[in-house]
Amino acid sequence: VRAPLAEIVASGDELTLGRIANTNAAWLSRRLADLGFQVSRHTTLPDVLREYASEIRAAARRADLVILSGGLGPTVDDLTREAAARALGVPLVRDRRALAQIRRFFARRARTMPPTNERQADLPRGAALLPNPVGTAPGFAARAGRSLVAALPGVPGELFAMFDGPLRRLLEKRFPRRPAVATRELELIGLPESEVGRRLEGIASPQGNPRLSLMVRDAVVCVRLVARGRTKAEARRALGAVVKGVRAEFGDRVFGEGGQDPADVVAALLMRSKVTLALAESCTGGLVGHLLTNVAGVSRVLLEGLVTYSNASKARRLGVRRSTLARHGAVSRACAAEMAAGAARTARAAAALAITGVAGPGGGTRAKPVGLVFTAVRLRGRTTVEEHRIPGDRVAVKSRAARLALDHLRRRLLRIGS
Amino acid sequence: VRAPLAEIVASGDELTLGRIANTNAAWLSRRLADLGFQVSRHTTLPDVLREYASEIRAAARRADLVILSGGLGPTVDDLTREAAARALGVPLVRDRRALAQIRRFFARRARTMPPTNERQADLPRGAALLPNPVGTAPGFAARAGRSLVAALPGVPGELFAMFDGPLRRLLEKRFPRRPAVATRELELIGLPESEVGRRLEGIASPQGNPRLSLMVRDAVVCVRLVARGRTKAEARRALGAVVKGVRAEFGDRVFGEGGQDPADVVAALLMRSKVTLALAESCTGGLVGHLLTNVAGVSRVLLEGLVTYSNASKARRLGVRRSTLARHGAVSRACAAEMAAGAARTARAAAALAITGVAGPGGGTRAKPVGLVFTAVRLRGRTTVEEHRIPGDRVAVKSRAARLALDHLRRRLLRIGS
Repeated sequence: VRAPLAEIVASGDELTLGRIANTNAAWLSRRLADLGFQVSRHTTLPDVLREYASEIRAAARRADLVILSGGLGPTVDDLTREAAARALGVPLVRDRRALAQIRRFFARRARTMPPTNERQADLPRGAALLPNPVGTAPGFAARAGRSLVAALPGVPGELFAMFDGPLRRLLEKRFPRRPAVATRELELIGLPESEVGRRLEGIASPQGNPRLSLMVRDAVVCVRLVARGRTKAEARRALGAVVKGVRAEFGDRVFGEGGQDPADVVAALLMRSKVTLALAESCTGGLVGHLLTNVAGVSRVLLEGLVTYSNASKARRLGVRRSTLARHGAVSRACAAEMAAGAARTARAAAALAITGVAGPGGGTRAKPVGLVFTAVRLRGRTTVEEHRIPGDRVAVKSRAARLALDHLRRRLLRIGS
Repeated sequence: VRAPLAEIVASGDELTLGRIANTNAAWLSRRLADLGFQVSRHTTLPDVLREYASEIRAAARRADLVILSGGLGPTVDDLTREAAARALGVPLVRDRRALAQIRRFFARRARTMPPTNERQADLPRGAALLPNPVGTAPGFAARAGRSLVAALPGVPGELFAMFDGPLRRLLEKRFPRRPAVATRELELIGLPESEVGRRLEGIASPQGNPRLSLMVRDAVVCVRLVARGRTKAEARRALGAVVKGVRAEFGDRVFGEGGQDPADVVAALLMRSKVTLALAESCTGGLVGHLLTNVAGVSRVLLEGLVTYSNASKARRLGVRRSTLARHGAVSRACAAEMAAGAARTARAAAALAITGVAGPGGGTRAKPVGLVFTAVRLRGRTTVEEHRIPGDRVAVKSRAARLALDHLRRRLLRIGS
């Protein structure tokens, strides 16, 4: 079975180009791949009606499915309805059902609908309405020759909800013959991308089935595997063997699946095992606390965080000894260990995580260069310290240090059970 | 003078599509607009040689300048060299100067060059080398009909450095006749995009000169104005009047220029006025500390941050009264004020910023719904508290609350001088 080709087209000025349109394109690309489509192109062009319409026509000639993202708002800059109608060679007509939905949206919020919003109910003649369960902008889908053109709003939350709801049902009906696909994403930490790539060589490849792709983000390498088969079961079998191989090769370096951050995994482990945590951050400046508190419900286990940026603060708040600071400096194994012990003790927490390092660009020396970071974990009365050499600028060092610190804690927490 | 048209073309799989390629496209789009080009399209397509080559040819027919981003690495998946050579109808030839630069890159880092990296010195015959001052992948530029095709590496830092260095010099030589452009970006905070749009109506428009575009990110609205003229002075005059109008309309809601975060402005104000700061964060979980410590040198003024997530921590670390917590709750004006006062006192800091609120999704009540956030600033013995109602999910509430808190501090710091 051939995978139907899909293209994504969006418009915007140079300020928005590559921002929201591309968040959406990235998300759509993965979802479409998971549904057995092959994403063959993603185009962003300026808000010029003639060019937008002609690109929609060109895309509909090349691909089986064309998704338009954005430009369905109420203002004159929102050109998608006009461009699609022109590309399809039909006029816009006001859709009564769409208008009723927009009115209901405002009524539920006890707001009066501005007259400009009526435009949002205009659809190319003959198009099917895709109702918007979240916002005011309805979408639509229409036949263009042998292709299907579907328009979704640009607000990511609305686009995601409409793709997974009404559009997905439509795609399943209109494209009954697609390859069966099975997908897994494994997240690894603590290894450079080049080493991950090399060690994957005998296991999976970008040309194989499953098809391998890699992406690096902070200290995390994401390994994506997409398997195809005649049936879902066949695709899953092809995938399963390779996933097993990847896990065997990398062991506990694999920390998560499906786009997780180390913080998500650590928060889940803490909540499951009911271990309370205190943080002592220096060079990461609060980032570890921020990442952990992105997880709802973490307040049950996260007692407090101390961003002890100054030496005085390290001594006063955490009880780091002045002699330690004088002899070894703030960026040292000894200081990291005392920070973790002090955080656990003063917060009366079962576990503590401490980070100290040189984020740069200043402050580096020959002995302690920019990117040198120590992480310490205090758990069940035992403190472990790890040393990291992190490449990159200040923001990259902070970002990677936070993930490596969380991963250090994750590995300690895993060993509680065993 | 007509603005030369520019297109950006990149390749990638669905995992990387819309990620790095698009960071680069967004950056390039702005830089090209500032140089008097009109960015007419941005295309991302899969790593398939035939399609990539044919898209380069099509782009070179449509546009005066085609920038290829990415795909210049050493592996077989890096197709840009091959695709460009095929599009130009020339063979690849190994460039001695490029090879020498790659060897030097490894030599300086005392590493042996893997033989696969030699491929990076292959350029389409007749192309000019664009040296890479930062990494191993050299770029190149070549004539294709009436168009110029330039290839830059995909690593953002390398792409930025090469565009601003060798490519920019080449563009100035090859495109001597471009409209003169003057650009300004003003950042506003604390107003919804719709209100900013409405109040800008008599001042600037997307069709005017300067051309207006808006982008929202967290609680910040970015107002971008691009003016064109026959001369730089003419463009600057057209811009200046409108910038003055925007500033007059929005007063101190304008907090920065050119892509600044509120944290950048606050860090600069603190460092300039030598005011030391302590943070007391609850619902933001460390994000304010993280944002401030992204600014190099802030350690001179940022003494410490306390993420007092639990009530016990608020009482013990900051001296918030148990009676305040019992009577008003942790999310209250009174608690925010005591957190700020306690942070300043215990850290011996000249200023303190405190945040407490309901980030959601749980924990909201009728009286204290999700998104209710109090920020408090202690400065010169006086505490001010502001109340915010922030829409969005947990991550959005945290992100906006952090910016609104920093802006509260910014406005207090500005009034020190007056």
